[in-house]
Amino acid sequence: MAADPVETRNALARALSPRSVALVGASERSSASAAVLAALRDYGYTGELHLVNRRGEPVGGQVTHRRLADIGGPVDLALVMVPAAGVPGVIAECAQLGVGAAVVFSSGFAEVGAQGRVLQAELAAARRGSGPRLLGPNAEGFLNLVDGVAASFSSSVEFTRLAADLGISGRDGGAPTPQDVIERARGTVAVVAQSGGLAFSLFRRGLARGMGFSRVLSTGNEADLAMADVLDYLVEDPHTRVVLAYLEGLRDPRRFVATAARARERGTALVVAKVGRSPAGARAALSHTGHLAGDEAAYQAVFDRHGVVSVRDADEMLDAGLALSLNPRSAGNRAAIVSLSGGNAVWMADACAEAGIELSPLEETSSERIRAMLPAFASTTNPVDVSGEPGVPPAEVLAAIADDPGLDILVLITTLARPSRLEVDRPALERLRKGPKPILLTTYTDPDPTCTATLRELGIPVYPNTRRCAWAAAALAATATTTDVHDPAPDLRGLNLGGTLAEWRNAQTGDSVPEYRVGRLLRQAGVPVAAGSLAIDADEAVSIAAELGGPVALKLQSAGVAHKAKVGAVALGVEGAAAVRSAFAAVTSAVAAPGLAVDGVLVQRMVPTGVEVIVGVQNASGFGPMVLVGIGGGLVEVVGRTELHPAPLGPAAALKLLRRLRLDRLHPDDPQCTTLLPLAALVSRVSAIAVELGDELEELDLNPVILGRDGDVTVVDALAVLSPPG
Amino acid sequence: MAADPVETRNALARALSPRSVALVGASERSSASAAVLAALRDYGYTGELHLVNRRGEPVGGQVTHRRLADIGGPVDLALVMVPAAGVPGVIAECAQLGVGAAVVFSSGFAEVGAQGRVLQAELAAARRGSGPRLLGPNAEGFLNLVDGVAASFSSSVEFTRLAADLGISGRDGGAPTPQDVIERARGTVAVVAQSGGLAFSLFRRGLARGMGFSRVLSTGNEADLAMADVLDYLVEDPHTRVVLAYLEGLRDPRRFVATAARARERGTALVVAKVGRSPAGARAALSHTGHLAGDEAAYQAVFDRHGVVSVRDADEMLDAGLALSLNPRSAGNRAAIVSLSGGNAVWMADACAEAGIELSPLEETSSERIRAMLPAFASTTNPVDVSGEPGVPPAEVLAAIADDPGLDILVLITTLARPSRLEVDRPALERLRKGPKPILLTTYTDPDPTCTATLRELGIPVYPNTRRCAWAAAALAATATTTDVHDPAPDLRGLNLGGTLAEWRNAQTGDSVPEYRVGRLLRQAGVPVAAGSLAIDADEAVSIAAELGGPVALKLQSAGVAHKAKVGAVALGVEGAAAVRSAFAAVTSAVAAPGLAVDGVLVQRMVPTGVEVIVGVQNASGFGPMVLVGIGGGLVEVVGRTELHPAPLGPAAALKLLRRLRLDRLHPDDPQCTTLLPLAALVSRVSAIAVELGDELEELDLNPVILGRDGDVTVVDALAVLSPPG
Repeated sequence: MAADPVETRNALARALSPRSVALVGASERSSASAAVLAALRDYGYTGELHLVNRRGEPVGGQVTHRRLADIGGPVDLALVMVPAAGVPGVIAECAQLGVGAAVVFSSGFAEVGAQGRVLQAELAAARRGSGPRLLGPNAEGFLNLVDGVAASFSSSVEFTRLAADLGISGRDGGAPTPQDVIERARGTVAVVAQSGGLAFSLFRRGLARGMGFSRVLSTGNEADLAMADVLDYLVEDPHTRVVLAYLEGLRDPRRFVATAARARERGTALVVAKVGRSPAGARAALSHTGHLAGDEAAYQAVFDRHGVVSVRDADEMLDAGLALSLNPRSAGNRAAIVSLSGGNAVWMADACAEAGIELSPLEETSSERIRAMLPAFASTTNPVDVSGEPGVPPAEVLAAIADDPGLDILVLITTLARPSRLEVDRPALERLRKGPKPILLTTYTDPDPTCTATLRELGIPVYPNTRRCAWAAAALAATATTTDVHDPAPDLRGLNLGGTLAEWRNAQTGDSVPEYRVGRLLRQAGVPVAAGSLAIDADEAVSIAAELGGPVALKLQSAGVAHKAKVGAVALGVEGAAAVRSAFAAVTSAVAAPGLAVDGVLVQRMVPTGVEVIVGVQNASGFGPMVLVGIGGGLVEVVGRTELHPAPLGPAAALKLLRRLRLDRLHPDDPQCTTLLPLAALVSRVSAIAVELGDELEELDLNPVILGRDGDVTVVDALAVLSPPG
Repeated sequence: MAADPVETRNALARALSPRSVALVGASERSSASAAVLAALRDYGYTGELHLVNRRGEPVGGQVTHRRLADIGGPVDLALVMVPAAGVPGVIAECAQLGVGAAVVFSSGFAEVGAQGRVLQAELAAARRGSGPRLLGPNAEGFLNLVDGVAASFSSSVEFTRLAADLGISGRDGGAPTPQDVIERARGTVAVVAQSGGLAFSLFRRGLARGMGFSRVLSTGNEADLAMADVLDYLVEDPHTRVVLAYLEGLRDPRRFVATAARARERGTALVVAKVGRSPAGARAALSHTGHLAGDEAAYQAVFDRHGVVSVRDADEMLDAGLALSLNPRSAGNRAAIVSLSGGNAVWMADACAEAGIELSPLEETSSERIRAMLPAFASTTNPVDVSGEPGVPPAEVLAAIADDPGLDILVLITTLARPSRLEVDRPALERLRKGPKPILLTTYTDPDPTCTATLRELGIPVYPNTRRCAWAAAALAATATTTDVHDPAPDLRGLNLGGTLAEWRNAQTGDSVPEYRVGRLLRQAGVPVAAGSLAIDADEAVSIAAELGGPVALKLQSAGVAHKAKVGAVALGVEGAAAVRSAFAAVTSAVAAPGLAVDGVLVQRMVPTGVEVIVGVQNASGFGPMVLVGIGGGLVEVVGRTELHPAPLGPAAALKLLRRLRLDRLHPDDPQCTTLLPLAALVSRVSAIAVELGDELEELDLNPVILGRDGDVTVVDALAVLSPPG
């Protein structure tokens, strides 16, 4: 089924810009047929257009063919709107005739239940092999503003209404031409959604906000081409700089990771709404990590890792799209704010703190420059409050500090109630727009339409409140052009950890690997584990304990007992031969399951108390192995503070996670966090183990890892879960 | 300074609805003067109007007086717009003449720095005693739509422009009359902000959204009347049901608590934007609780306790105001969603989960009713997805389940792109509007103006995206008409805890009270504390240890050593006479501060390990004592999971806090949380102690409280900090 990605991209390119189109199901009596024909014409499609009507009745004055085969020439794109039951037949015909692609508008497939699912399977089968690539069924088609091809019956695409809503008239006051509309609506933003309603409503609302679009696509039920295919195409599309995607789920999460990485490489911003964010819950996981690293967290970790902007509603999507499509890429997250209103400056500062936007102090030269411009009582620190109507336009104040090397993003807070007010700021805004830094503007009054038009013309994005503006700044920061710091995870390739895992496979009856085996692998990989050995009988336990010295722990080792402490198969703080002997007896008799394979008892040196941390690996999200770090040891699910990151990650990235967990607060006198470096190194090393073991490993829990007062780390318990074979 | 609240309310009422107004600083050459005169006239002010111009030049064709005294009759309200330096003199004149109140528009006071602050102090002094109550200086005045009095030069109030923006024309196509505008703009929402720009921009934006207003006020620099006075007035105002307030800070937080309680009693909703939400940081606190319970958390706890809706930006404020002013009060947080679009139904479900809105399952009879209305493949569980265009209008589907007793809030997701679509839903919406439950509508397309007008006429609030709609539902839920459950804290009045505190005062040199003393008070109040006694010498320590049996802890007790463990003045797990003796020596010699007053060494029975919890009291926010509960014991600041609640609180409220901390996850097999009842009782008891000790107590830390496996609780360490005397 999996087609070559280059072929898929080419097929989509051909479908979006066809030289020959056939409308199958054209009919004088169908409003959808009329709407599609009007859209093709109105947006300036100039290629061949064939109509197929099974009765051969003329449509819109044009002759029709009874069957596709009657066209007698090549067809790049079939637009299919016959009743559902007839669609598989049409697609089979397309396959015979070598039609490149088909948009299936018809509904009545998987979305209507079991019977429809059967029909959809037939449809997929009909195209398999040399058949056309499909968008749909149950799709609303697409709009390609780069080439002027509208293949949709969506009322949002309807030309006259669109032109009227945008206030576009023709050059001599006549009807607007395709060029008139396309000039205004074309831009670098692409939208893709499974739901056509959503895709086209985002398009319309984006136009109203001043965005321009390259392509708008709905994938419908995705019997063939899916979200991932379209994303892959759009990321490579030279006409697209920002992609807005509404995502319900991914069939192949790793492919999304590759697409996201490629997007960042090309400077294309991905803005994704991942819906269905309810907690994972359903998954039956043996380890804490498995429980904690739900799908939602995995998606977010991947988004964070690859600079994908994650949005929670349509407004956030448009807010981000606007900021990213009108602005150059930001270099970072440090913003300057100049405000005409003191109250709104305070509000904005709060909003920036919430959104992770830094209001860095101005350089002394910048401060001096604006002090000279403003009344003595104005605030000349960031945020700059120009205090009502100063003698100088606020945008000039912003321009005066724009070159400050400590600033990445420029924000103006003003009122757009009067065009005259904006005209005063206009020259400075024009200069700022030509500069290398992104600009955002937020108004605390409902904007006057003239002001909105002026700012659209200037290409400056406007936000109706401070929090949305701060959030848009965060979207700029998320896709910032930071070059990846060299921060490699340890290279464990020479250690043959895979061999150790193969041994586990051979030795185990189940999927759960007991602590003593995991401990050996961890030591092999250089991870510090509490000293100890496996004892087969009480005598051996006594001698191991004597060798270790001091109090020891005894723990039953069996693949069938994943949670030893829960069933009383663990004894802690045992000291002296007699005590070790009786603990051995207690631990080995704790589980009375007939046929339970017991490997022995792990005798381990007790580790001084410290902060209990969990370090784990989860590999069920489909994105590849993810590393989890959390606070609380056995209580991690109550404490609820965990961080997730795709593996591998270097020590510097790991340290960032530890800071986010606020572990830096353990040592307020150590701002560089040197005390946390051993733990960061351990996390990075575990991520390298995860990469080495790959998909063979489903879950790994090091829990607790004891973090000592001086930063020393020791793994005190460990559990691995292997993926089911095959 | 503190005036009688009833007098203050009466003074505000008189100022807002004056029978006689004097404009001091009226001038032919001042645009502000012209704007205020026009506003008074245009909004229909019909009382006496006197103009004061120091040269006696006529203004707008009307004769003027040179001085207030020349008016020769009573003046209810003076509107003052003379230059700053002249204002104190005018106010002194007002005082002599018995003018009721003055709005000081003039700027140039505290907002311009040190010199202005001096002038503002003069102004305040000039009114003290029998002088007029002041709004301002640096205020933009007010708008009273109940009585038709506009005393403002704000351009947002400008009549012709407002009428044009609202699309209001006169009855016969002529100029609109005051009545025409007031009919459309009047409603039950009041706005108050220190910044006039903010107050009037919220008014204008609210009008555009379909809200109606009772009063709009700006308090300016608050030389006299402050936010709290205006809130107090508005809560009692029979014409106001919703108050929107932009709050920078409170001079008297307890007064706000009383106002909020009174608002809830009267069914008036308070919607508050508290700005300046940066972490407290600055406060030097001895205890963890002091550190953790910052101002922001205290505000939020008070808001939560009293049903105040807390908003973070202007849109949230308007979203909440719209939902609350157009709807009846909600009975709870359970919403039903009916959606025309599947994608948006999923999006809304996510948004509801985020906002704490419950999508409760429909009753069987409700489900049956809508199953009969919808195609077989539509989803008839909550959220109900009617799947495109069903045969029946979506609003009818919503109406069919509206009576379900499990639902408090009704939500319709639809498109407002076409008036014809809305007309189909209109009859059901009209019926729903007359019902007892609040309704919200969200559109996934930019609304057609006709649709907006129709819904304004119907009185149904519209939201432009799912998250804002869910958030508005949360505002309805926050102000729900839930009757307080009888959940009293223990009554500790008979115990004379105040006497114990007085003993502390007598005994201490500093403000920090050592553990053994706090422990005695806790036992006196019925809180379980680890067994132990104070030892004066090693012999006594040995005998106490023997009596306690098993391992003990030894801890130095001194008011000068608040953090014993940090300086090595604690020994844990000490067993046997010799060990106790040497621990006693170690602990007493740990701190070598000359003149340190040491009370002895607390010898305490070791408590088995368990979950470490902190229970504390903080009393620095100004709101009265607050109880804090958190996870993590000594690590609580790293773990960062704490909850705050004003004292007192009953065990049921305490249990809610413990659930929010997710401590219920410790016992997944105990959904009723009976295991947490002893801890909840302890928290409630501590809140009663806080009430008894009142403002004498600044901070109290019980940290850790050990929560045992079976739910047993024991306080293992404690610290109290007394308020500085006086």
